[in-house]
Amino acid sequence: MATLFKDVLILDGSRTKAQRVHMLVSKGRIAEILDVNKTPPGADKIISGHGKMAVLPGFVNAHTHAAMILLRGLGEEAPLMEWLQNKIWPVEEKLTPDYIYWGTLSAMLEMLETGTTCFADMYFEMDRVADAALGAGMRAALCRGITAGAPGKIERSLHENLDLAEKYHGREGLITIQLGPHAPYTVPLESMKNISQAAKTQGLGVHFHFLETKGELDNLGMSPEKYLEESGLLEVPYLNLAHAVWLDPKINLESENITLIHNPCSNLKLGSGIMPLASWLERDFPVALGTDGASSNNRLDMWEEMRTTALLHKGVNQDPVCVPAVDALRMATYEGARVFGFTQKGMIREGWCADLVLVNLDKPHYIGVNEENLAAYIVYAGSSGDIAGTMINGKWLYKNGEYPTLDKDEILQKACEARTAITQ
Amino acid sequence: MATLFKDVLILDGSRTKAQRVHMLVSKGRIAEILDVNKTPPGADKIISGHGKMAVLPGFVNAHTHAAMILLRGLGEEAPLMEWLQNKIWPVEEKLTPDYIYWGTLSAMLEMLETGTTCFADMYFEMDRVADAALGAGMRAALCRGITAGAPGKIERSLHENLDLAEKYHGREGLITIQLGPHAPYTVPLESMKNISQAAKTQGLGVHFHFLETKGELDNLGMSPEKYLEESGLLEVPYLNLAHAVWLDPKINLESENITLIHNPCSNLKLGSGIMPLASWLERDFPVALGTDGASSNNRLDMWEEMRTTALLHKGVNQDPVCVPAVDALRMATYEGARVFGFTQKGMIREGWCADLVLVNLDKPHYIGVNEENLAAYIVYAGSSGDIAGTMINGKWLYKNGEYPTLDKDEILQKACEARTAITQ
Repeated sequence: MATLFKDVLILDGSRTKAQRVHMLVSKGRIAEILDVNKTPPGADKIISGHGKMAVLPGFVNAHTHAAMILLRGLGEEAPLMEWLQNKIWPVEEKLTPDYIYWGTLSAMLEMLETGTTCFADMYFEMDRVADAALGAGMRAALCRGITAGAPGKIERSLHENLDLAEKYHGREGLITIQLGPHAPYTVPLESMKNISQAAKTQGLGVHFHFLETKGELDNLGMSPEKYLEESGLLEVPYLNLAHAVWLDPKINLESENITLIHNPCSNLKLGSGIMPLASWLERDFPVALGTDGASSNNRLDMWEEMRTTALLHKGVNQDPVCVPAVDALRMATYEGARVFGFTQKGMIREGWCADLVLVNLDKPHYIGVNEENLAAYIVYAGSSGDIAGTMINGKWLYKNGEYPTLDKDEILQKACEARTAITQ
Repeated sequence: MATLFKDVLILDGSRTKAQRVHMLVSKGRIAEILDVNKTPPGADKIISGHGKMAVLPGFVNAHTHAAMILLRGLGEEAPLMEWLQNKIWPVEEKLTPDYIYWGTLSAMLEMLETGTTCFADMYFEMDRVADAALGAGMRAALCRGITAGAPGKIERSLHENLDLAEKYHGREGLITIQLGPHAPYTVPLESMKNISQAAKTQGLGVHFHFLETKGELDNLGMSPEKYLEESGLLEVPYLNLAHAVWLDPKINLESENITLIHNPCSNLKLGSGIMPLASWLERDFPVALGTDGASSNNRLDMWEEMRTTALLHKGVNQDPVCVPAVDALRMATYEGARVFGFTQKGMIREGWCADLVLVNLDKPHYIGVNEENLAAYIVYAGSSGDIAGTMINGKWLYKNGEYPTLDKDEILQKACEARTAITQ
């Protein structure tokens, strides 16, 4: 089935100006992009934009714990460690595989409504997360969160993570699997070495929380460079460091295999600090964006992270020119897809996957928008409330309030039941 | 006509917990609030909340330049002075009274959709702004922005501002008027003294930009205390200082007549810096919230300012406990109404004005919400996209996408024409 986007503005993170075009989507791909003055090709379905709709690449939420929507609002306004130890971890003990399945699906409702086409998830019972994503047709990069605990827990979790990779890596082109050691303070260095070795052997990337808080840096026991080297993490196929609030941009690190994942709203809310993003961008270090879990944000809205990213660092650096809109857009889309092993996603180009967000520009706050300034309007003036549809692989997963591949009512009911069960 | 809100959660900035109630609105006021277990009174119209709708006080945008929606997107990502001098002021020269009228109405569409019931506006051709607000039934605190320029300009502007007060102050209970000297760098000290004297004589408050940028502080020529004293501003009936990014919270100032207006998104976007809000709140200094003009934000969405306020200062201070949700809610509602001379507005209490926002909680991101945690859900997880209606004086000005007192299509067409005319 082919869908024609007739007379729309297209924009992605590789260009400062939008183009007014006709765009044909066919067999899950962007088949053709034509100047708006050309005659548009035929199609089964036609979206008539009249120059008042924009198409962006789908957002990639590069760091989250989707099922944590079930824990949203527990232990508000508390420091990270107190929050984790007293409010989050005891409730997580009660999560069953089913709860995680329905919690993930409920998170997917939020993500699809706000334009996310792919999410990078670190949690447990990840086969159920993979099933949720595959069932809906959503893209996901998954890892089993590995933490110390009872004897043998790390080994069992690593085993689960490797099983997950065997079963799901590459499935339907929708899923990639990473290894997911949780953080330096929850995984002993010796175990980190084993995990890095496994990642090398299996050709898997690693998704890791690193230096989210000042305390974590103080307690690392060695310099961040030394830690990354000693742990073997520098040798894994690719390494995605979530948060990195306290990583110094002057560090001597090659960026070829390393990407930082900035989670501005979560870092602000938990009082963890503010990552020195502008300095990382100055040295051309790759950075993607994530929401983190909904219990520390508390939204799963990548548009919001994109805007916060573009605003926050201008204020912190007292520099209205740093982190321009188009950079924030690229971080929220292409960078996240690329660093989790998805190719030909996150840009609007012929032949690339049709993971797309349809934006309604026929609203008061878009008066004055044109090809030249669309990026700024989107990032600064727009919001996820402007989204009319979210498409993955050429299929609508969200369109005008409806979810064609998901049973919204059932999901909400099951997620509510799970919430009630774990908080009783 | 009476409206019954049946089985809703009510919350305002004076309480950390919501209440589940029936609430009757009649003759523009909150007539009755009953426990949900009591039998609800009869009414002409009934909103059935089923415990899944919340009612908040309407937001008060305590600092904006509404008609500047016409200048949105001009001169993005530039320093404040360069932006003002090269991009904003030359285009403002082309604004006619009609353009300002339609631009203001278009801004009102945005504000009503995002829950704002009252806005404090500093601009010019303010009689047209007053007419726009009165025509729609929206509350507004208005002042004529007074800046130096051609000989006699300040005197003429002050005269206009005083005429505005005579004509509109108190009109229909919807309008209050302040005097609006623009800023220390645009109004000479001697003129400031005259304006302060006029404010005292006429019993009017003053709405003033103060210390938005570091450069402004450096060029003030004296300490901020001394400036406020010398200019006579400490003696006016009330003084609302917009921005105050560079005002030191250790300053020796009595707060009885002074309120600061925090504009977090605008300050971030223009790279002006970050107001030390947490310190001001520690000393119980009153602070309200505003969006600033849409050309430096670029949204007119008070929910967004409320959330940014609650997140930003936790991150800057590395303190997840500071600026709790309920404080941000109070700043976004009651504080703004109070400081612009509106009484019995901004809280949900029997006898107070029915300036209200209806919020739909029947959405995935509200799973787990209850009376105890509603404030945190609203501020951190919610967004203006959850708004089902905005009521002023007991009348719906926005309801499910419609504007009962405004002609949306005409407004958008006229605002588009104005935008085209001033940017050609």
